[in-house]
Amino acid sequence: MNPLYVIKIGGNIIDDEQKLKAFLSNFALLKGRKILVHGGGKLATRMAGQLGIQQQMIEGRRITDAETLRIVTMVYAGYINKNIVACLQSHQCNAIGITGADANLIPATKRQHATIDYGFVGDVTNLQPAVGTWQLLLDTGLTPVVAPITHNGNGQLLNTNADTIAQEIAKGLSGMYEVQLIYSFEKSGVLLDVEDEQSVIGTINPSYYAGLKEKGLIFAGMIPKLDNAFEALSHGVKKVIIGKAEQLDELIGGRAGTTIANE
Amino acid sequence: MNPLYVIKIGGNIIDDEQKLKAFLSNFALLKGRKILVHGGGKLATRMAGQLGIQQQMIEGRRITDAETLRIVTMVYAGYINKNIVACLQSHQCNAIGITGADANLIPATKRQHATIDYGFVGDVTNLQPAVGTWQLLLDTGLTPVVAPITHNGNGQLLNTNADTIAQEIAKGLSGMYEVQLIYSFEKSGVLLDVEDEQSVIGTINPSYYAGLKEKGLIFAGMIPKLDNAFEALSHGVKKVIIGKAEQLDELIGGRAGTTIANE
Repeated sequence: MNPLYVIKIGGNIIDDEQKLKAFLSNFALLKGRKILVHGGGKLATRMAGQLGIQQQMIEGRRITDAETLRIVTMVYAGYINKNIVACLQSHQCNAIGITGADANLIPATKRQHATIDYGFVGDVTNLQPAVGTWQLLLDTGLTPVVAPITHNGNGQLLNTNADTIAQEIAKGLSGMYEVQLIYSFEKSGVLLDVEDEQSVIGTINPSYYAGLKEKGLIFAGMIPKLDNAFEALSHGVKKVIIGKAEQLDELIGGRAGTTIANE
Repeated sequence: MNPLYVIKIGGNIIDDEQKLKAFLSNFALLKGRKILVHGGGKLATRMAGQLGIQQQMIEGRRITDAETLRIVTMVYAGYINKNIVACLQSHQCNAIGITGADANLIPATKRQHATIDYGFVGDVTNLQPAVGTWQLLLDTGLTPVVAPITHNGNGQLLNTNADTIAQEIAKGLSGMYEVQLIYSFEKSGVLLDVEDEQSVIGTINPSYYAGLKEKGLIFAGMIPKLDNAFEALSHGVKKVIIGKAEQLDELIGGRAGTTIANE
């Protein structure tokens, strides 16, 4: 199987124009099949403020009402996505910007919850119907750049977590490609000591993870990320790597960040 | 050669949610290869107003400064484009939303003018490098939905006239497909009497057009549109049809609107 990199970048890179440009020029150099998934950053919140739209939070979660959906669609799928695409094109990377609605690449369903109405938030259902189209784009040399917006197939766009999108794409394409899923965030990797950027754990496998959890050595905020990583591995993803976007080459080469693998 | 429809819809449809939905459900039913090019509508102007961004006009032309480019990228490539795509998907039309930056589908260059600085406005250069990608998308059953944003290949997005984009796509793909270019606007077609919607001219060929112009029977505002239509025909486009979006079927069937053809 051909290798495929699924790389997710978060708001800390999106919000910093110089860092974003540096990252994209490195990303463009990466050989072979690759997909970039981007988050939102602060621009959507700033725009909502300028337009006088109140952001509603319930239990720490942002509620996506119709006005907020309009803003995230504009900012994520319009401004951020197209500027990333234009920048990659200038580095001879043949990028194509998409949302989950485009070519039905990421089917989703509106989140149902017993007590909280999250509004227009989507959970990815099943990538299977779209796998042929993903393959067509990738095998022809295109690099999909994915904005965190999906749709329900009935004409409704939905706001969807970018980490989840990256994970679902990685899982969905693991039957066709040898998939490596790379999550970039603000830290150098999974840290033994959350205050010490030097304490990066190089590799975590399931038994080591169990031991670390037992001893209470994993920072609580990392547990969902790691659980998701192991879930991806159990669905055929070959490797998950967590680290700083600025170190993309080193992350892929295994010289930086934390690699999560079955062995 | 396989037939291809390139259909442009303007702001009068974009701004009217019911009309747009009705149009898209008809468009989805249209068999074979097709491309939809959409204009902007009033939302961008309204957003600029809400955000306190002054619209600068020089000799009746809107100047696209950096802030205006940001807004049109958000509104055209984000909000309008993705909502059209989601709606078409709900009608089983496998739409994929793009700008000229995506897969480098519409290369352009920043407009140079001796006396006016139009700002970030792009003129389409040459579709030739992208023809293979257009063909790949179309021949695999995808329906491109094109927002009127292009790029210069050096990372700069550019605001570009949607009529021109439709014309350039039609010309650029006329070597591979039997292209019909359909411009929808607010009138029923080219009118002999601008006040009378019943006075639609059914067919215009070059000699008839010359005669009409000589007698002063063509409304001044229509002359650039018709000149562009004949220019498209001279570059291999088979037929140009002008009429109301609400009459899509009749336009294509030759039962409404004005057909501009060489014979």
